[in-house]
Amino acid sequence: MSLSTLSATYLPAIEAELQHQVNRLNEPIYAPFYEMLTYHMGWSGEGAGPEASGKRIRPLLVLLACAASGGEWQGAMPAAAAIELIHNFSLVHDDIQDNSDKRRGRPTVWKIWGMPIGINAGDALFVIAQQALFDLHRHHPAETVLQAARVFHQACLDLTKGQYLDLSYENRTDLQESDYWAMVAGKTAALISACAQIGALLGGSSPDLQEAYRDFGHYLGLAFQVQDDILGIWGNEALTGKSAASDLLEGKKSLPVLYGLRRGGAFAKRWLEGPIRPDEVAALAEELAREGARLRAQEAADQMTDLALQSLRRAEPQGEAGEALFELTGKLLGRQS
Amino acid sequence: MSLSTLSATYLPAIEAELQHQVNRLNEPIYAPFYEMLTYHMGWSGEGAGPEASGKRIRPLLVLLACAASGGEWQGAMPAAAAIELIHNFSLVHDDIQDNSDKRRGRPTVWKIWGMPIGINAGDALFVIAQQALFDLHRHHPAETVLQAARVFHQACLDLTKGQYLDLSYENRTDLQESDYWAMVAGKTAALISACAQIGALLGGSSPDLQEAYRDFGHYLGLAFQVQDDILGIWGNEALTGKSAASDLLEGKKSLPVLYGLRRGGAFAKRWLEGPIRPDEVAALAEELAREGARLRAQEAADQMTDLALQSLRRAEPQGEAGEALFELTGKLLGRQS
Repeated sequence: MSLSTLSATYLPAIEAELQHQVNRLNEPIYAPFYEMLTYHMGWSGEGAGPEASGKRIRPLLVLLACAASGGEWQGAMPAAAAIELIHNFSLVHDDIQDNSDKRRGRPTVWKIWGMPIGINAGDALFVIAQQALFDLHRHHPAETVLQAARVFHQACLDLTKGQYLDLSYENRTDLQESDYWAMVAGKTAALISACAQIGALLGGSSPDLQEAYRDFGHYLGLAFQVQDDILGIWGNEALTGKSAASDLLEGKKSLPVLYGLRRGGAFAKRWLEGPIRPDEVAALAEELAREGARLRAQEAADQMTDLALQSLRRAEPQGEAGEALFELTGKLLGRQS
Repeated sequence: MSLSTLSATYLPAIEAELQHQVNRLNEPIYAPFYEMLTYHMGWSGEGAGPEASGKRIRPLLVLLACAASGGEWQGAMPAAAAIELIHNFSLVHDDIQDNSDKRRGRPTVWKIWGMPIGINAGDALFVIAQQALFDLHRHHPAETVLQAARVFHQACLDLTKGQYLDLSYENRTDLQESDYWAMVAGKTAALISACAQIGALLGGSSPDLQEAYRDFGHYLGLAFQVQDDILGIWGNEALTGKSAASDLLEGKKSLPVLYGLRRGGAFAKRWLEGPIRPDEVAALAEELAREGARLRAQEAADQMTDLALQSLRRAEPQGEAGEALFELTGKLLGRQS
């Protein structure tokens, strides 16, 4: 219950801080520009609301790690907002790079306003994320802000490295499991790891414990991505084929697909022949499971989850927020810890 | 002569610092990613060399403002690199947004590696710029670094605002002169202004003098842009029509064009009929000059130059670097100060 109690306090405060930060662009002559950002954040336009905003997992993690380290969560709020803004910057650019029309059920920014303006909207979110981070100085000494910035910027660079790998994998058929882990370490785990580490830093954890938090976030990110890969093929939405929700349709080189390709069976044969059609999705997902890819991916997710939980225990999280971190991990990874 | 003496010292050091910063990506598995950045910066690939690097005016300005404020230029080097990297980030994204094939005579990054990877290369330059800035902590107290970061981030945000205006003007025929100034204040002047202000801050100028430096950079940027607009229509390359160098061909809403449109004469009539053909460029440029647009633009450039020089005098720049700032202004604006 700790998680739902704390979320009820944190989430509205996170939303308020994010709005406060994006408000930097709220000037009459930039009204349409400001609107793109509020639209993407889920606050304006058709379909606005919690569904369109995403779950704000990352900022929640920052605040929980801070509180579980004995700090005041309010003092970590600018960092929480900064990381959520970076996450959203990367989504805006991702959608352009992947030519995606929809995000959280609504048309993507570039689809509405065009590619050039979409790139610029992402850039603006990036800048505002930087500005948000430096508002930490309201609560923390300059030295601490610079320490947080160092972790933050390294995570941002790792994000672009992961994105580079992801894009460069598109036309490769020789990918190994290690290529996958390098990519998701940057694309998914780097930011989640930074959430935990920065929260711990701001909460006053010792360097050793900060490192444990960092490892926790890293493995949590990896486990989360593998879980997402599994749902992307065998989740309800993917199987019913209602939309282009299946990773098989999109040709995504997820972990189960890499297993299938290495196995070199019927799945691999079909995959290498070219794009998968919607009417093939269900049978192909079944074939891939039959070849053992689902089980192996689940084992990998479980292994990463165990490493995440071990790291979290090593981080010695305190009090209600500490319990909430274990709860959140269990919830994200679809099992009780 | 101060400018050439100091440039001879500063420019190689700037190049070394930029390389040091971009080196953050120099790892075997990211080799092609690293190569995109070194290519764009002018250090690798076909046509590499000073011509491909650009003039490094912005970092030069940071170092000169620092030295002219009585500081050690070496201590401002991370900020100089950071601003040049931001400038280059914006060029990489600009080229995608404007669908430009060439930059400094070579194919653009996105043209070689594709649009998705091009966006990501720009994002990486943005991150590395942030990291470069925080290396200021090698020489300056954390509080000073945060002050510099505040100016830096505001300039980055202004850059995206200017870019938004520029992109949004594309299909507008009702633009006023004030729309133009708002756009170039963000797109060109914000970063140049930040160069001068941050240099002065790091050099130890008082807040009043920092403000004078900021104003100097602002007007220098505006004057520089108007001068560029004039050359884009009546410069040698534009008139000979050897390439798509003419702003008239590109349909750019530069200051002389806005004057012509407001005048509502033969130029405006032709402009509103649709894209200009290469064979019309010379005659149309002549018509626009005949209608007084060249003269009026030159007057605007001169006025901004005067304001820049007034601000620079108010900034009380010292010694050889101070002289070099006046020289640089004269050189950039094509007249002796």
